[in-house]
Amino acid sequence: MREERIVSEASDRSVAWFDKARSAEIVNGRMGPETPARLREVVSVFVKHLHAAVVESRLTEAEWMEGIQFLTAVGHKCTDWRQEFILLSDVLGLSMLVDAVSHDRPEGATENTVLGPFYVPSAPAYPKGGDICLDGQGEPLLVTGQVRNEAGQPLAGVTVEVWQTNDEGFYDVQQPGVQPENNLRGVFVTDEEGQYAFVSVKPRHYPIPDDGPVGQLLSALGRHPNRPAHIHFIVRQDGYDPVTTHIFAPDCPYLESDPVFGVKPSLIAEFRDSRDQNLARTYGLESPFWHVEWDFVLVGKADR
Amino acid sequence: MREERIVSEASDRSVAWFDKARSAEIVNGRMGPETPARLREVVSVFVKHLHAAVVESRLTEAEWMEGIQFLTAVGHKCTDWRQEFILLSDVLGLSMLVDAVSHDRPEGATENTVLGPFYVPSAPAYPKGGDICLDGQGEPLLVTGQVRNEAGQPLAGVTVEVWQTNDEGFYDVQQPGVQPENNLRGVFVTDEEGQYAFVSVKPRHYPIPDDGPVGQLLSALGRHPNRPAHIHFIVRQDGYDPVTTHIFAPDCPYLESDPVFGVKPSLIAEFRDSRDQNLARTYGLESPFWHVEWDFVLVGKADR
Repeated sequence: MREERIVSEASDRSVAWFDKARSAEIVNGRMGPETPARLREVVSVFVKHLHAAVVESRLTEAEWMEGIQFLTAVGHKCTDWRQEFILLSDVLGLSMLVDAVSHDRPEGATENTVLGPFYVPSAPAYPKGGDICLDGQGEPLLVTGQVRNEAGQPLAGVTVEVWQTNDEGFYDVQQPGVQPENNLRGVFVTDEEGQYAFVSVKPRHYPIPDDGPVGQLLSALGRHPNRPAHIHFIVRQDGYDPVTTHIFAPDCPYLESDPVFGVKPSLIAEFRDSRDQNLARTYGLESPFWHVEWDFVLVGKADR
Repeated sequence: MREERIVSEASDRSVAWFDKARSAEIVNGRMGPETPARLREVVSVFVKHLHAAVVESRLTEAEWMEGIQFLTAVGHKCTDWRQEFILLSDVLGLSMLVDAVSHDRPEGATENTVLGPFYVPSAPAYPKGGDICLDGQGEPLLVTGQVRNEAGQPLAGVTVEVWQTNDEGFYDVQQPGVQPENNLRGVFVTDEEGQYAFVSVKPRHYPIPDDGPVGQLLSALGRHPNRPAHIHFIVRQDGYDPVTTHIFAPDCPYLESDPVFGVKPSLIAEFRDSRDQNLARTYGLESPFWHVEWDFVLVGKADR
């Protein structure tokens, strides 16, 4: 009995001292009783895995210092209009993973992908079929489709927000004075049959901002910065999980190597070379034009 | 045979698309053939563990955004004279772990601990027994000892660099105009018997810089910011592994809860309340004074 007690006291006391063999346990054991349970959980899990990474990689002091300097440079690159840590999260696949963990949607429901840094909440509203290309530059594109629920019922009054690059791979906000304000951005609402439609131009691939530390990292890792051509959507309706997603052009050379891992097979659209005279008349287009038919399937909040 | 080939092709192609079940593998698989082997290894290990942490914690998008904002705030707090990422690494136990991974010293050799942010490379040189307390404030302390190699041989000409807080818990660089420049910093050299000695004052505990995001994190985790009272050393000699370390006062209330996990049992010194008249005379002290006897054992570079 005596010996057992001594061993146990020694072991209790040793909790205080740092020990490589159970370093994460020691760090996490320091949290106080008032620490909110979820904060405790998240911090514990990240501390555990970061410690495991240091040990597994046998990180040297010089490499640790390089890491400190890299993170500092990432922080210093962040401004009100540039978020280099989100970019870092994106290129490491962490943003897509968080999305995947949060939105495990049922088969058949439209899948999410990354929001990206070029969303502007104040895009103008258009009637069905409106043309969001304000400068007439690029190859005309018609996008038509329906929004439904999982049971296949059309959903009326759904907000379909859209934004994309021009045919040179730039968003309006990247080219103030070159592109008109709000070029290639618009908000649409589905009609009573759940239908939406808009006219635009074919988007082009473009590099993520690669003039900062994340761009240097990508380059050191032998990766290119070019996101495959896509159109952004946010589709939302009361009572349904909002969907933040893209549709991708199937012929883009960067489709299989998106630097932010945003491509999902279910989001690759067919861009048809259309000469449909009825559609051309309806939407005021000249033939030929690109046509994408794209439906969205929303999941009710109560269904999850 | 036919079926096997189809399965294998589908699986090859699916490498391109993001997949929650093997997300880290997909991200790491993107590195190019020119990526240096060590960079590939370190990035792969950290990506693997960060992905595992996201999945295990089921990190939500809101929590991810809080993390992004926290890291951004840490980056913005970094300046030429404040390194908030090192502080973050310190309070998460990562700095001590990197040190432990790098310096697995043999039994009996003096152990390392963190460098800390208050080291100044230009401390003045003193002869053996010099008094580094320039303002006469605090309880007098005599530190004496020997530097030896692993075989127990005294090492002459070893540089023993020392720095510490005053008795109020502040370094000179934190109180310009209050403390004299280079107060409580000095560089000593061991004599032909490997002996060093200096006069100082008893150090006091002090808080790590806790007015930034790392301080907020510590507070949320229910942890205090107070480092237990200690004296810093860097001990170096050509041909030997330099030792960056502290000695700790045994009676400090924060000894077992150092926020940066720097305490090792082997680094806790005895601070004796001395009335030794010979020592008092030799070092120009009035009795009583604190006395620490502290030896260092260096490991030859060739021995590792």
